[in-house]
Amino acid sequence: MSNKPFLNTIISPSLLDLYEIKESLFVVIDVFRATSTFAVALYNGAKSIIPTDSVEECIRIGQLTDGITAGERDGVIIEGLNHGNSPSEYPRDFIENKTLVITTTNGTKLLHQSLEKGVHQIITGSFPNLNSVVRYIIQQNRNVYLACAGWKNRFNIEDTLFAGAVIEQVRDHFTIQCDSSLMAENLYLRHKNNLANFIQKTTHWHRLSRYGLENDMLTCISLNIADCLPFFQNDKLIKQNF
Amino acid sequence: MSNKPFLNTIISPSLLDLYEIKESLFVVIDVFRATSTFAVALYNGAKSIIPTDSVEECIRIGQLTDGITAGERDGVIIEGLNHGNSPSEYPRDFIENKTLVITTTNGTKLLHQSLEKGVHQIITGSFPNLNSVVRYIIQQNRNVYLACAGWKNRFNIEDTLFAGAVIEQVRDHFTIQCDSSLMAENLYLRHKNNLANFIQKTTHWHRLSRYGLENDMLTCISLNIADCLPFFQNDKLIKQNF
Repeated sequence: MSNKPFLNTIISPSLLDLYEIKESLFVVIDVFRATSTFAVALYNGAKSIIPTDSVEECIRIGQLTDGITAGERDGVIIEGLNHGNSPSEYPRDFIENKTLVITTTNGTKLLHQSLEKGVHQIITGSFPNLNSVVRYIIQQNRNVYLACAGWKNRFNIEDTLFAGAVIEQVRDHFTIQCDSSLMAENLYLRHKNNLANFIQKTTHWHRLSRYGLENDMLTCISLNIADCLPFFQNDKLIKQNF
Repeated sequence: MSNKPFLNTIISPSLLDLYEIKESLFVVIDVFRATSTFAVALYNGAKSIIPTDSVEECIRIGQLTDGITAGERDGVIIEGLNHGNSPSEYPRDFIENKTLVITTTNGTKLLHQSLEKGVHQIITGSFPNLNSVVRYIIQQNRNVYLACAGWKNRFNIEDTLFAGAVIEQVRDHFTIQCDSSLMAENLYLRHKNNLANFIQKTTHWHRLSRYGLENDMLTCISLNIADCLPFFQNDKLIKQNF
């Protein structure tokens, strides 16, 4: 056996209890669109991002922090909030030095679940910040979980593809004895040169394209366009230099 | 929308509750080795197979039916039972006209769970009986769930590859809006011409090869070598002609 730390992929939040995530480095992945938007907003200078799991909490924290509140249901901004979940809504000239308070379903729930289980550190991953995730987890030399938010606890393709993109680059640095990781890497290798085509076959593409969000989704699968490390600390995500 | 029935893939028993399996045709998949052994034993003339989820029940039913009892833990026949889980233990000159009472972990549990949820019909699938599964589910024209037994509720590669092998052949007959099915088919298409190599990278291969079961596993990924339809009826599996 080698002494390399372990890397595992959790392909649905429903499977979280099968893994010993305590003390691990935990990467929350919600490609469409939470963690992609987090990367873009922090890259563009947001002071911090506060993920909340309810609209009420989003409004309350928004008032406390004088932040921008954001959240969507069915492709429309939720009543009482100011903005949506699109990365395109957070260019530098809008978001710089502001606090973004955002409510999302799948990703935020997973983040809070992992926190309760005593992980060492949470970061968030998405194609726009792939390189930072790769560099950071290699540097930390600690057991890693790539945790896919999925969709209402179901497996989804886009989060798993991102896990595969990470694994492709980090595999020599970790002990990987995990069929989910093997599958994720294989799926990514099969489609890495035609991601934009393959992604259009997924259920999430079909759902979000009904709301005209195709360009959003293409942004969310663009590699390293907002390369920074969203780092969870004191209940919020900040851009961490490392 | 087309009127074709739906096909979904359930990649872990932990995800069963996310699906409306009632009244569906439910395919239990446990490639290493339960459902492969079921196919081989029935193909070779076993009168019926009674899957049980405990050793005690296996012994009890074995006595009631005058059957052959079988089960393994960690590659060794369980004390009190007669035989193991290898397909190679069930050639025609041994198993013909006999009842096989077998205790397995992942596959049997999934079978009983689905029964409780009121599925219309359970069949079992494995590479040795791929063609029968394909022909039967096309013929039935009913919603189908390909249900992977996995390993202790984790995702595994081999069951998902079998789901992919089915999907490759039936996709024109079903409405498939399911990322798990899309993933399964893609994984299978990537490796269908080198299954024996790819399978050696899986966690299950590593575990079972410690017990010298490599040949068993190669049998379990051999297509259509025991092509029959294991059909669950009155608490047992029988070979169904259709």
